[in-house]
Amino acid sequence: MLPGADSGIARDGKVLVLAYDHGLEHGPVDFDPVPETADPSTVFEYATHDAVSAIAVQKGIAEAYYPSYEDDVSLLLKVNGTSNLWMGEYDSAVNCSVEYAEELGAEAVGFTLYGGSNHEVEMAEEFREIQEEARARDMGVVMWSYPRGQGVKNDTKPGVISYASRLGLELGADVAKIKYPGSPEAMADACEMAGEMKVIMSGGSKTDDRAFLEQVNSSMEAGADGLAVGRNVFQRENPIEILDALEAIIYEETTVDEALERATLAPADD
Amino acid sequence: MLPGADSGIARDGKVLVLAYDHGLEHGPVDFDPVPETADPSTVFEYATHDAVSAIAVQKGIAEAYYPSYEDDVSLLLKVNGTSNLWMGEYDSAVNCSVEYAEELGAEAVGFTLYGGSNHEVEMAEEFREIQEEARARDMGVVMWSYPRGQGVKNDTKPGVISYASRLGLELGADVAKIKYPGSPEAMADACEMAGEMKVIMSGGSKTDDRAFLEQVNSSMEAGADGLAVGRNVFQRENPIEILDALEAIIYEETTVDEALERATLAPADD
Amino acid sequence: MLPGADSGIARDGKVLVLAYDHGLEHGPVDFDPVPETADPSTVFEYATHDAVSAIAVQKGIAEAYYPSYEDDVSLLLKVNGTSNLWMGEYDSAVNCSVEYAEELGAEAVGFTLYGGSNHEVEMAEEFREIQEEARARDMGVVMWSYPRGQGVKNDTKPGVISYASRLGLELGADVAKIKYPGSPEAMADACEMAGEMKVIMSGGSKTDDRAFLEQVNSSMEAGADGLAVGRNVFQRENPIEILDALEAIIYEETTVDEALERATLAPADD
Amino acid sequence: MLPGADSGIARDGKVLVLAYDHGLEHGPVDFDPVPETADPSTVFEYATHDAVSAIAVQKGIAEAYYPSYEDDVSLLLKVNGTSNLWMGEYDSAVNCSVEYAEELGAEAVGFTLYGGSNHEVEMAEEFREIQEEARARDMGVVMWSYPRGQGVKNDTKPGVISYASRLGLELGADVAKIKYPGSPEAMADACEMAGEMKVIMSGGSKTDDRAFLEQVNSSMEAGADGLAVGRNVFQRENPIEILDALEAIIYEETTVDEALERATLAPADD
Amino acid sequence: MLPGADSGIARDGKVLVLAYDHGLEHGPVDFDPVPETADPSTVFEYATHDAVSAIAVQKGIAEAYYPSYEDDVSLLLKVNGTSNLWMGEYDSAVNCSVEYAEELGAEAVGFTLYGGSNHEVEMAEEFREIQEEARARDMGVVMWSYPRGQGVKNDTKPGVISYASRLGLELGADVAKIKYPGSPEAMADACEMAGEMKVIMSGGSKTDDRAFLEQVNSSMEAGADGLAVGRNVFQRENPIEILDALEAIIYEETTVDEALERATLAPADD
Repeated sequence: MLPGADSGIARDGKVLVLAYDHGLEHGPVDFDPVPETADPSTVFEYATHDAVSAIAVQKGIAEAYYPSYEDDVSLLLKVNGTSNLWMGEYDSAVNCSVEYAEELGAEAVGFTLYGGSNHEVEMAEEFREIQEEARARDMGVVMWSYPRGQGVKNDTKPGVISYASRLGLELGADVAKIKYPGSPEAMADACEMAGEMKVIMSGGSKTDDRAFLEQVNSSMEAGADGLAVGRNVFQRENPIEILDALEAIIYEETTVDEALERATLAPADD
Repeated sequence: MLPGADSGIARDGKVLVLAYDHGLEHGPVDFDPVPETADPSTVFEYATHDAVSAIAVQKGIAEAYYPSYEDDVSLLLKVNGTSNLWMGEYDSAVNCSVEYAEELGAEAVGFTLYGGSNHEVEMAEEFREIQEEARARDMGVVMWSYPRGQGVKNDTKPGVISYASRLGLELGADVAKIKYPGSPEAMADACEMAGEMKVIMSGGSKTDDRAFLEQVNSSMEAGADGLAVGRNVFQRENPIEILDALEAIIYEETTVDEALERATLAPADD
Repeated sequence: MLPGADSGIARDGKVLVLAYDHGLEHGPVDFDPVPETADPSTVFEYATHDAVSAIAVQKGIAEAYYPSYEDDVSLLLKVNGTSNLWMGEYDSAVNCSVEYAEELGAEAVGFTLYGGSNHEVEMAEEFREIQEEARARDMGVVMWSYPRGQGVKNDTKPGVISYASRLGLELGADVAKIKYPGSPEAMADACEMAGEMKVIMSGGSKTDDRAFLEQVNSSMEAGADGLAVGRNVFQRENPIEILDALEAIIYEETTVDEALERATLAPADD
Repeated sequence: MLPGADSGIARDGKVLVLAYDHGLEHGPVDFDPVPETADPSTVFEYATHDAVSAIAVQKGIAEAYYPSYEDDVSLLLKVNGTSNLWMGEYDSAVNCSVEYAEELGAEAVGFTLYGGSNHEVEMAEEFREIQEEARARDMGVVMWSYPRGQGVKNDTKPGVISYASRLGLELGADVAKIKYPGSPEAMADACEMAGEMKVIMSGGSKTDDRAFLEQVNSSMEAGADGLAVGRNVFQRENPIEILDALEAIIYEETTVDEALERATLAPADD
Repeated sequence: MLPGADSGIARDGKVLVLAYDHGLEHGPVDFDPVPETADPSTVFEYATHDAVSAIAVQKGIAEAYYPSYEDDVSLLLKVNGTSNLWMGEYDSAVNCSVEYAEELGAEAVGFTLYGGSNHEVEMAEEFREIQEEARARDMGVVMWSYPRGQGVKNDTKPGVISYASRLGLELGADVAKIKYPGSPEAMADACEMAGEMKVIMSGGSKTDDRAFLEQVNSSMEAGADGLAVGRNVFQRENPIEILDALEAIIYEETTVDEALERATLAPADD
């Protein structure tokens, strides 16, 4: 963690990443709920919402669509990733160099590390090169810190998530994206382990409005610095409204009820 | 995808690649139906047909034969490929550097990615290097996107083909060459997933004139931007006529009947 | 071993490394006994104690916290390390380049070598590169010499520890960090095998004050040049007092009793 | 294949390589029939025969012996090769860089490719680097194209040899050295598949004079451009005479009878 | 083999290497017979004997001790080696670059090749890089040519040793260090296979004075150019006397009896 290195993808010290690398990681099936989200323009439009401090996409999407949005959206280029057609031990291909990410206008790079995988050592060494290259170019570094693979029986266990968070700090990330570990106490511990590094919650599969916002709020109260969200925005029929609500919770620290109201979403018993 | 990067291998925004790397991928057996096609000159001659927007060959063929055709034919250098003498998990050797491809006069490079193979990660990383090297030299990038291997039970299933198409977009290809997924609807979905990237249908094994043209036409109507064809041209006794017909369908958007007629092929019940 | 190369991390020719890479190697669980030690600042404060000749941390910790302590603490950057989420044959990822370590202000680099592991050859080659790069930058090199893995049944057997020490000398370390081999005689032999290279004892798991100081004293009398200590300092309620005692033993060669007294720790029967 | 790239190892467009890498590939046992052939000077002397357009040796032999023969013999440096002490899946170590081969005075480099081996992909990628480096230095490239390994049941089957020949053309060799596929028709097919690339027959194990010359003659008539011969020269008691005969057949296109006579070898019923 | 490249480690064209890399290869156990030999200074002192044309050590030993002996001893830096803690298929880590070896004052580099091992290909490629780097720096190259591993049932069989010797010549060593193959005839054959490359006998485990000298003498008479000796010098109580005797045999070609007498060792029936 280098103080300030994440400033290009943050707003008031908070981070809300709109993640849109699902076409690579999960395939077209993630666009089924709202078919027009297969078109990257749709999601780039969402990313112009003030709540979004950066969009995370793969190289090819950035090449084709980012030029139209570079004045309005900050780019977090996800530099590794792998299709789920492949079924081996968890690993991820480095699909973009940091140099090219910078050329595409990225303010930061994103990297998935599967701690506990048989590929952990190799991935950590790839991370080293990318992290140092980012430092040389004054770009931020976000680690998708996801323990998985032969060494990890339960990847949302509190101890595992706290370890995931610490890995980000130890290895030199500016922001670590981690899963919600099931309770505010566990999330607080994970944030504690991060020291001065920022922690953002991974949004995960789509849930209902209130449940999702409650979890985000609980994370923020536990010390998190923001959120990375994909399906919980773009698989919704009301993406703008949920972004309104997230803006309230993350940047203005409102209650969930207030956020729901502000966003003209059902304020309760949704 | 970078807008315009494929212009050197396109005509009016459409792409018809005459593929001739079968000597490496399948071996001499593919030349049996028309023995003179073992001589690359024969196929380079076909490539001078106006319908052909580029020829795809391996490095050695380009070295020896392209100099005689460089004024009349655009070169798409296929930079990886492997013999079928080898029987391991799907993989492909990088046989030509982008730098040398440029020296040979190539407008674009072609790369096979076997998504789902145990070598997917390694191949994707090779693709990264080649794609970025091509960008630095203003060359286009065509991905032969063929999911195969341990993770892929059925490589022409619609979901798999749509994923193949999306992989091209996400990873930074300008054009993806995919198999026909069995129906116009599935092909339309695959084209949808490609966003602004071009999609071309892979011609596959030789079929009869009408059946082949119907499939091409169906692909074009579904949103495809062209075709890559090898055996369906060079294993035919009437390669010029079929190219006439393809020209009609691809660039002039005629019906199959009109194309057949124009090419003096049997107009129906062939 | 290059005479003087370790001067930046030594005091009067002795070395006391405060090791704090447990967040990576063991995970947050090591901070449970004294929760505030999860905050690197806490341990950096300990490192300002005169007894400490260097602190050993991973890159990310150095980036975020070392700038505030660079006037008071010498930095030994641990350049490899791996989480214990992973369960394969002993190996360690190179997480920091020597160049970047120097940029962070490091006087020396630390490297774990698992002699006897199936990864020994690969790790030794990584060590070669790091050692030579350190030589080119006038930085010292400390080897965590820990025989482990398929070839090593008992990693604290005297013969194994003496071999570990010799590996450091043969391969070009300035200091080797080894485990206590169980007796003063065995430790003397391990120091003998080190030739002119320095040997420091690895502190290991937390034990009681006297037992720990007796072992340190026994090592020093056997010819060791110092200590690397982590949990035996930061998992204690009295970290400063134990550092006072260590200072007495290591630099002033007092008896254990005197050291305990000096440090206002119970002088005996603790 | 690049027109003219092989001129340094050809005579009148024909190629007769005296191969002498048996000390590496087979070991000293190949020198048993004529013990003085263990001394490279003996075989370099043979290579001064006008029939020989190049000698093929490994780096170490070239370093020590080529300086005495550089005015009289053209050097084809064999850049990979492996002992037969090793028994794994077919592979070959790259023992000499193209740069160093050039420094040693080589006009061309030789490379073995085991198509069908589990190492095919890796070997093809090594070939790429060597071929392009040779192009940059205006050196020729000869491929020992030997399908072998897990994918190849019968390595002298016509289809396999034709494929071997085609691999040379597709991958960018100037000359392919292939085994005799058992019949003139099969050899003609293999030469056909080579396009403009040269094909030379591999001499193989020692046979009697007439049988050997008949096979060479049959290959030449089938379209081959020459021969690579080792044991059939240096394991003979009459190496000069057989070279006389080969010169007649290869460069002067005599009959086998005339060649035998010219070489004062028994003209028939040998 | 490059004529003269080994001059820095030879005396009158003969080579006597005092090998002292046992601390890495075998561990401290080799110093048990004469404990002070654990101190490299002891053995460097032996190396000042006129009989010794070079000392062979690993990088770390050279760094720490060679500066005191550089006027009196020639340095042959052993650039690879591995502990015997490790139990996998024979392999050896490259522990020193040629560039750094030169910086340390080495006249030549030493490299172990395990022909027949599953790592033969990889090791041969490492040898290529080291050999060419040594050529660029005018340094000699000594190959420890030790066939071993899955492909080698008996590593002292005459055919295997002759092959080992030939590997040195073919791959470009200036000197090959081989085991004694059991008889003068077999040693003569191994020397024959070496062509102009030098061959030195590997001393092996400690034997009695006469037996050892007889074997050295037998090797020299068979055509060897010297000896590499470690334990047969430093595990002796009379290292200077045995060096006196070796000097007589190797450089003055005396009989064993005369050598024993000269060295005031028991002249017979030892």
